[in-house]
Amino acid sequence: MAQLRIALAQVNPTVGDLDGNRRLVVAAAREAADAGAHLVVLPEMVVTGYPVEDLALRKSFVSASIKATRGLAADLAEAGLGELPTVVGYLSRREDQSAPGASPGQPAGAPQNAVAVLHQGRMAITSAKHHLPNYGVFDEFRNFVPGDTLPVVRVRGIDVALAVCEDLWQEGGPVTAARAARAGLLVSLNGSPYERHKDDVRLELCQRRAREIGAALAYVNMVGGQDDLVFEGDSLVVDAEGDLVARAPQFTDTLLVADLELPEAVDHPDDPDRFDGLRIVRRTLTAAPVAPYPPDENTVTPRPDPLSDTGEVYQALVTGLRDYVVKNGFRSVLVAISGGIDSALTATIAVDALGPDSVHGLLLPSEHSSEHSVSDAEDLAERQGFAARTAAIGPMVAAFERAAADTGAPLTGLAAENLQARVRGTLLMGLSNQEGHLVLATGNKSEAATGYSTLYGDSVGGFAPIKDCWKTLVWELARWRNDEAARQGRTPPIPENSITKPPSAELSPDQLDSDSLPDYAMLDAVLDAYIGTDKGEAELIFAGYEPALVRRVIRLVDRAEYKRRQSAPGTKISSRNLSRDRRVPITNRWTV
Amino acid sequence: MAQLRIALAQVNPTVGDLDGNRRLVVAAAREAADAGAHLVVLPEMVVTGYPVEDLALRKSFVSASIKATRGLAADLAEAGLGELPTVVGYLSRREDQSAPGASPGQPAGAPQNAVAVLHQGRMAITSAKHHLPNYGVFDEFRNFVPGDTLPVVRVRGIDVALAVCEDLWQEGGPVTAARAARAGLLVSLNGSPYERHKDDVRLELCQRRAREIGAALAYVNMVGGQDDLVFEGDSLVVDAEGDLVARAPQFTDTLLVADLELPEAVDHPDDPDRFDGLRIVRRTLTAAPVAPYPPDENTVTPRPDPLSDTGEVYQALVTGLRDYVVKNGFRSVLVAISGGIDSALTATIAVDALGPDSVHGLLLPSEHSSEHSVSDAEDLAERQGFAARTAAIGPMVAAFERAAADTGAPLTGLAAENLQARVRGTLLMGLSNQEGHLVLATGNKSEAATGYSTLYGDSVGGFAPIKDCWKTLVWELARWRNDEAARQGRTPPIPENSITKPPSAELSPDQLDSDSLPDYAMLDAVLDAYIGTDKGEAELIFAGYEPALVRRVIRLVDRAEYKRRQSAPGTKISSRNLSRDRRVPITNRWTV
Repeated sequence: MAQLRIALAQVNPTVGDLDGNRRLVVAAAREAADAGAHLVVLPEMVVTGYPVEDLALRKSFVSASIKATRGLAADLAEAGLGELPTVVGYLSRREDQSAPGASPGQPAGAPQNAVAVLHQGRMAITSAKHHLPNYGVFDEFRNFVPGDTLPVVRVRGIDVALAVCEDLWQEGGPVTAARAARAGLLVSLNGSPYERHKDDVRLELCQRRAREIGAALAYVNMVGGQDDLVFEGDSLVVDAEGDLVARAPQFTDTLLVADLELPEAVDHPDDPDRFDGLRIVRRTLTAAPVAPYPPDENTVTPRPDPLSDTGEVYQALVTGLRDYVVKNGFRSVLVAISGGIDSALTATIAVDALGPDSVHGLLLPSEHSSEHSVSDAEDLAERQGFAARTAAIGPMVAAFERAAADTGAPLTGLAAENLQARVRGTLLMGLSNQEGHLVLATGNKSEAATGYSTLYGDSVGGFAPIKDCWKTLVWELARWRNDEAARQGRTPPIPENSITKPPSAELSPDQLDSDSLPDYAMLDAVLDAYIGTDKGEAELIFAGYEPALVRRVIRLVDRAEYKRRQSAPGTKISSRNLSRDRRVPITNRWTV
Repeated sequence: MAQLRIALAQVNPTVGDLDGNRRLVVAAAREAADAGAHLVVLPEMVVTGYPVEDLALRKSFVSASIKATRGLAADLAEAGLGELPTVVGYLSRREDQSAPGASPGQPAGAPQNAVAVLHQGRMAITSAKHHLPNYGVFDEFRNFVPGDTLPVVRVRGIDVALAVCEDLWQEGGPVTAARAARAGLLVSLNGSPYERHKDDVRLELCQRRAREIGAALAYVNMVGGQDDLVFEGDSLVVDAEGDLVARAPQFTDTLLVADLELPEAVDHPDDPDRFDGLRIVRRTLTAAPVAPYPPDENTVTPRPDPLSDTGEVYQALVTGLRDYVVKNGFRSVLVAISGGIDSALTATIAVDALGPDSVHGLLLPSEHSSEHSVSDAEDLAERQGFAARTAAIGPMVAAFERAAADTGAPLTGLAAENLQARVRGTLLMGLSNQEGHLVLATGNKSEAATGYSTLYGDSVGGFAPIKDCWKTLVWELARWRNDEAARQGRTPPIPENSITKPPSAELSPDQLDSDSLPDYAMLDAVLDAYIGTDKGEAELIFAGYEPALVRRVIRLVDRAEYKRRQSAPGTKISSRNLSRDRRVPITNRWTV
């Protein structure tokens, strides 16, 4: 056996910020060297940030990434870190453009989701992700061509195999090749987005793979928010028996250092140089094992503590908002606060992410606003210490009503309700443009799914922190946040009345959400099954949901899709469009 | 040799409308039978409409499609059309879920882009698309698993091989297998979206493939608009030498009937049952050739006549708008007409698509509107006979300005300009909600690319007919449309002054587009290279564009992306989101 001190750098890169990301890597390598590490590993595509999406198809960006990674190897050497093998993910291209797979219909320029080991000022070995996920939030088959090698580097006498993210999740390929290559350690670089309970799934997967390969496994994940994804970190190491050896916290930049005892590599004439379609490429960086040393105790951050499941979601929302604002160069946000739970939770997340001085509230009462709307909103701002202004929308609404009536179309019913929301949206955007705040939209996922919102009205905003939270989760998060404050002996940030009062859009007299929607507990359950698991009407009824409720919810969702069609698309007459939406086609024409 | 009369049904299905699409197929088969055809072919996924996108992942929809296709076979038999082999595309699933490819990470339920030959009330043979495009407007690797058979049906003594769309464009697979199977005819079912000049490319491809296979090739494409795609038809037949034998017009529902003379099938003991990874599956529907008959003369619709290249684009825009409105159940559209060229062209396309009674114009003058703005807009409405109303926006703008000033943030500069556009957007949406019109956004692609528009302002609308047209193409289309009218002795629909005057947003005194943007001819050239071909700064300068211009345009595009970020996304904390955008990440952090 041989000893190895490995450092997993759970860092937060920014897509496109090649210089900044390079500096992140150098700082992590220095910290790893200071901790006496023999190998430091950074996340998937740390040089470019992740996900780069269509930027992969831009030749000049691929070239810039390759150049930055070469430059990074030189940076490390110059900083005196050249002897520490540093594993980084970056964007590269397949050099052999005639290789199978680099055919017409595949991504232009054959870009690859690549990995390099930087050593002594050079890229000692490179490879690329083999399994390209193209489901859920991933579009990698669109943007990359697959790699076809398994790199194995010998570091301090230990054979270390490298794999990228999805390569670990799929059967076959790098995982089985790593076993065939008799690697002593499999290192996995990840940009693995946060999902609820994924940490449990991840640990089990790592344990299973380690046992399958018969080798220890070091899993490093990025942390932070990028666009609409959040990365949670949760880097970890398991030994060859699948036992957890070290684990990093979630949602925090960390260097996780672990002392491992691993089998010393022995060359064997029967070692295959191909396995399961992959070429096994070996490089020796340092052949001799390290001299024996007393290992440090490894850190295993416990789960679920310090975050409960709800707290974990809350922290993900804070992280996503913080990094969206910061990475896009904003300094402050503007939130319309109505006294309701959605805007209260949104503002609270913003204050937790950015501090009260960077959050600006705007009260926009109308003739239909209840008294408690204004007082609850003022209470919210006071509890959290952020500035709030008030602008009654009556005069603006009246001006539109007159103009519409003058054209012969006085606004009534839904048109009149939507008008109020749009006046609010327009004023928010005016102040945003004037003062430079990012507007936060306050809509939740139940509203979005059922279309219970106004296009260009309450849906206005550059970031919607709770758009992926069902309404029932919104309440749960608000309660959790208040309880957490109470536990710490602080003032609960959210007025109790905002949590307990019946939800209302307050766009017409005495309006309640329950006039238009089923009870949220039932609604959310059916929505989650219909949208989240793609179950159809018959399956939902078979699963025990009340038939009338199922039909009502499906009708609401399909009508909402129809409503989105009033605002979304345009004609595409070539494939050269600037951008495109992935929308669900009309679903209101068929029932099964 | 044996004779065969083949009918290619160039029809316009609607995504999700299974019943309506079934009726379309029966009607086409009846027309084909009446014309004496021996085989009728419909487009790719005609039963479900195309593209179904994420609907493919909904098990109940896949089941509904399979049921509808079985039902269609019965419909045809009941209608006395059971003896006419009818080839249709539909959505199916791979039954063998343990087959390679149906693994984790692949589309749930293993949906397939399938094809069936309906005969004597049954699905006589089924297969699925082998090559799944996942670039440009296609996401098929995300939504389908590939097929692994080549079906060959013997019809009237002729072996007919079937392939779906991309199978024809890619090397290997079905094309080479069809040659190995010694097919006398290759039938290709397509949902091939319109692009400029694609008709030329398509013909050349069909000719090349026919020569490669040594067999005639019948290519059937759908027609009409679906969401943001337009299908042009252009169905055609080439013989084994690659000579064009029959061709349908573009943008029109048609049954193209062609009389062919094809080699009679002869069984051979050496015929392979696998080739290039595909299993060759044979079915005999009718073994005996038809009795000799005098063939009709085949129709070859000439190109480019009757449509010039510009006229072809114009027709694509009309088709896209018409079907978006009709398939979504709208009866009318609302357009803000400013007297400028963009809104004039948009309204003209709408009148050509829907007729003047379904088009409603709205003039929204401000204090910055020039006199000709109003008179040109009125002239436009008069020339085309659509109704136009006027609502001066001054009072509404003033109400917002007072409210903003009262909050301590009087609106100036861009914030004041954007306000005017948003007031217009809000009033348009009010009338849309009140009267049920679909609002058309009038923005062009040069504006979208450079961000020269207002979020929630002039970008408001459910459909943007010219969003994929550079400004220079907008002028070209307007001139073409006026010339075409003059050629036919009609009043040119667009006021000459709208075409010739210098473009202006009219949001501040004496404002011109040229204050903020380079000359459109130069701008569009650089935009097309930067966005359309993904060239970087160095490449553009190397290609001969002026360095200062290149840098200015790149800055504009990157800033526009930044601007879109103020309005677009939200946090994604699971992969279960309702929908997502494919956006370009921040590009303003790197330069190469």
